[in-house]
Amino acid sequence: MKHSPALAALIEALRTLPGVGPKSAQRMAFHLLQNGRVSARALANSLNTSLDAVVRCGRCRMLTEGALCAICANPQRDRSQICLVESPADVVAIEQAGGYRGQYFVLMGHLSPLDGVGPEELGVREFEALLEGGGVTEVILATNPTVEGEATAHFFSELVRAHGVAASRIAHGVPVGGELEYVDGGTLAHAMAGRHALT
Amino acid sequence: MKHSPALAALIEALRTLPGVGPKSAQRMAFHLLQNGRVSARALANSLNTSLDAVVRCGRCRMLTEGALCAICANPQRDRSQICLVESPADVVAIEQAGGYRGQYFVLMGHLSPLDGVGPEELGVREFEALLEGGGVTEVILATNPTVEGEATAHFFSELVRAHGVAASRIAHGVPVGGELEYVDGGTLAHAMAGRHALT
Repeated sequence: MKHSPALAALIEALRTLPGVGPKSAQRMAFHLLQNGRVSARALANSLNTSLDAVVRCGRCRMLTEGALCAICANPQRDRSQICLVESPADVVAIEQAGGYRGQYFVLMGHLSPLDGVGPEELGVREFEALLEGGGVTEVILATNPTVEGEATAHFFSELVRAHGVAASRIAHGVPVGGELEYVDGGTLAHAMAGRHALT
Repeated sequence: MKHSPALAALIEALRTLPGVGPKSAQRMAFHLLQNGRVSARALANSLNTSLDAVVRCGRCRMLTEGALCAICANPQRDRSQICLVESPADVVAIEQAGGYRGQYFVLMGHLSPLDGVGPEELGVREFEALLEGGGVTEVILATNPTVEGEATAHFFSELVRAHGVAASRIAHGVPVGGELEYVDGGTLAHAMAGRHALT
């Protein structure tokens, strides 16, 4: 059965959302046009408003509405530590975990030459400017433990060390609360290799 | 970590989509503002366009852009059969299954007195007008096999019979291709009770 043009266009637009397939997109479209007309209009307005208002932080490239994000603008945060992450969601996750008091630098992706994503696209110039600004003593590489994330971490670690700054990588191993039996082999191998002596 | 106002509003708006929780909404918002700005604007436009263009079919209450939906406007469809369904998605599902050549009537919900959804909200007047218009010989009740769906089917079956029209209910039983072992008890009991003689 063919959908009417406006409905088909809406389903197509909803499919661009991450994790939404054709079936969910259709369900969302029917919901929005059926019982959710008020929230549909609110969603459209909210999309337009935030596309206009939300920009990247001039210092760390986090999504924000001002010139600087709340973390970069906060004088209480330690400017000597920079945590390098792939996406704004990673910043949110680390902040929710608590304990980290330094600043961030958001790459907005990872090195992916096939997709045309090189160091320039990841803001390597802004990052070097931060390093050259002085005061930074450690860069924590918190990219994802994927092939692309590791390659990105490797590239940036070389850059960091070339500026005479210490580079560190977040620990990989068995998740806290997890059961060894259900942990994949790669993670277990990492956990064994990264073991530390009990004192 | 608190999101900026426009970002928080967007996440809240995305959460109204069916099947989207706080985590997915945040992921969608970051995606839309990060790499999906073009598709975000397209989604906003598409929402506004379809909210303006898409209305209910004057005959069957299906979502459509004209006065009548494609099925009601099609002279090839059998006007003597009406299939009563809860939502537009059900129409799409039955059409995709193929084989049915009659028309539909979309309730846009089910009887739910606690939510203030009575027969009026389900278009009982339009439905009676269809029955009184004559020519209808069978109404197939294809509401969902839930408590509310059954109650709705019961209500409409009485109404249909009061108009001297035959009412039928779609069969419930073991899904084709399913394994008995994995079918729930209610469905199995239905399948046993609804058994038919092999000739």
